[in-house]
Amino acid sequence: MSEPVRTHMGQEIAEQPAALRATIDALLPRTGEVASLARQTRQVLFIARGTSDNAAVYGSYLIQAFGGRLTTLAQPSIATTYRSRLDLSGVLAVALSQSGQTEEIVESLAWARDCGARTLAITNGAGSALAEAAEVAFLTEAGGERAVPATKTFTTQLAALAVLAIGLGAELDPRELQNLPAEVQVMLEESADRSAGLSADLEGMVAELAGVQGVVVSGRGLAYSAALELALKLKEACYLHAMGLSYADLLHGPIAVVDADTPAIILAADSGPMLDGSVDLARRVAGAGARAYGIGGGDRLATACTRALPGPRLPEWLAPIGLIVPGQLLTEALSLRLGIDPDSPRGLSKITQTA
Amino acid sequence: MSEPVRTHMGQEIAEQPAALRATIDALLPRTGEVASLARQTRQVLFIARGTSDNAAVYGSYLIQAFGGRLTTLAQPSIATTYRSRLDLSGVLAVALSQSGQTEEIVESLAWARDCGARTLAITNGAGSALAEAAEVAFLTEAGGERAVPATKTFTTQLAALAVLAIGLGAELDPRELQNLPAEVQVMLEESADRSAGLSADLEGMVAELAGVQGVVVSGRGLAYSAALELALKLKEACYLHAMGLSYADLLHGPIAVVDADTPAIILAADSGPMLDGSVDLARRVAGAGARAYGIGGGDRLATACTRALPGPRLPEWLAPIGLIVPGQLLTEALSLRLGIDPDSPRGLSKITQTA
Repeated sequence: MSEPVRTHMGQEIAEQPAALRATIDALLPRTGEVASLARQTRQVLFIARGTSDNAAVYGSYLIQAFGGRLTTLAQPSIATTYRSRLDLSGVLAVALSQSGQTEEIVESLAWARDCGARTLAITNGAGSALAEAAEVAFLTEAGGERAVPATKTFTTQLAALAVLAIGLGAELDPRELQNLPAEVQVMLEESADRSAGLSADLEGMVAELAGVQGVVVSGRGLAYSAALELALKLKEACYLHAMGLSYADLLHGPIAVVDADTPAIILAADSGPMLDGSVDLARRVAGAGARAYGIGGGDRLATACTRALPGPRLPEWLAPIGLIVPGQLLTEALSLRLGIDPDSPRGLSKITQTA
Repeated sequence: MSEPVRTHMGQEIAEQPAALRATIDALLPRTGEVASLARQTRQVLFIARGTSDNAAVYGSYLIQAFGGRLTTLAQPSIATTYRSRLDLSGVLAVALSQSGQTEEIVESLAWARDCGARTLAITNGAGSALAEAAEVAFLTEAGGERAVPATKTFTTQLAALAVLAIGLGAELDPRELQNLPAEVQVMLEESADRSAGLSADLEGMVAELAGVQGVVVSGRGLAYSAALELALKLKEACYLHAMGLSYADLLHGPIAVVDADTPAIILAADSGPMLDGSVDLARRVAGAGARAYGIGGGDRLATACTRALPGPRLPEWLAPIGLIVPGQLLTEALSLRLGIDPDSPRGLSKITQTA
């Protein structure tokens, strides 16, 4: 590989340790505000679209698996188009938008408040309409993001959701969250060290993915959020037909599409209850003659896959924040290989308005 | 076209009017049981996978848009793998499984009951473990289904969900539901009349889709469920990289994948608040040089699309039950064109077990 091209996306991937550190430092002292806001609530309703919705999937699993509360992913058109009135007393509505300016999300949060919900916003937009509309605003400290595909605004949203879960009483160790930025830093350094450009497996994946049109991206449980986000990145910046599916949903039909021309990328934490199933899935894919690419999952997943990228040394509950990073590097490298400008893919702009 | 091959899938598509009639006749008298079961509940939690999960999306929109209750799509691994304890008092848990034998779903419903939820099952499996596990069992009257891709078991699930919504007090006219089977019958007859084989537009879509690897399938609001289901059918039986996306999520990134080689199929009711956006989406896709295929949406959507299949003359709340039918016919025809046996695609079996 020649000297890597410096894209905004590449820079912003590299800025994630600092952005995560600043976000965690700013938000972790505020768990008491969450506890107070949520005192009269029994469940959480997430309101988001696109990348922010993938972040909400992380929050949803995290709070249900460790925080003992039911969570719901809202269908915003119920608020903005059907204009339905629901009883949302006892509900904490959490809206996520990087810009804080997507009207559909701002309007949906106002609707939730009118229906009786308490409200919290997670946004990178200080002073944005969304931040103003919520009772509590968690501002992520990602700084400006110029590439259209979100990277640091996504991972800092996940960090904010981890703080939210802790504030809601989830049995999670805040010190592990504080160690996260350093671990992401180590991952990025090791990835840069491995060669002048890309590691052999990353290089191989890029070369092979440049020759296919579609890919399945799968993860189980918490890692499903990172799988959905990688699938979205590959659609946005590489125009790949990337299908993000949970392990279980994949086996309920879509496994039929995996073949010699349609690889599967499988993301997993190094430990936790989802690792066994992820390894089994990789074996099944490889056994069917298709390529299985692993991200994370330790030696066990790597061995079951035809190619693998190392994941973060993080506990399962934080692993998605690290697992997306090799996926971001893969997306940027593949986009450049395909002659696309990852910073401004066709048809997209930084703030999406959907009426 | 030569004489159509008679597949199980084709037969089962044709059996839908009778299956719908039998299901509605059996379940509509039972709305009182739902009202009684749900009296102490304020929200609905759907538990499902695969095609049944696409049905749950319909139920979720229907009950929120017209029934005034919050609904949640469960993440079954919270129950079966994370084994989390949630407070589900005040929740009506509704589990859907065609066979009633998918252990993950049976186990998740038992978990919901243990967490304090009231329970209802929708299944085609009389005497199945799922039917036995629920306080109220809504049996669909689809009869045996031999093709792996679900058709009549899906549409009868939607009919059962329509009855559920009425039982929960949604302001919907049961007579419109009773008219549904006749309207589906008319659609099937018109589709058969149009030529010895397929209509010109269906024939054209099949020919064009046989030459591409990927397709985006989109719908808004209630029709999103039919879009997800058509995407699943095209993955299962045609091995297409079919990406089912809501209109809004599509614009948040994935629109980048739509190009000359990646058409969009857009499903819409003939009326209702989602039609304008669906027509705009079709214009945007066609304006970008991609093929836009419409299903339903009346003359307005058909005019905006490069090819279109007529949808059902049904009100928006019932339209998804009719909109999937042209999608099923498209799937069967494309599968045969590609030399696949739609009745038994690779890698799939009729009952999926996911641990």
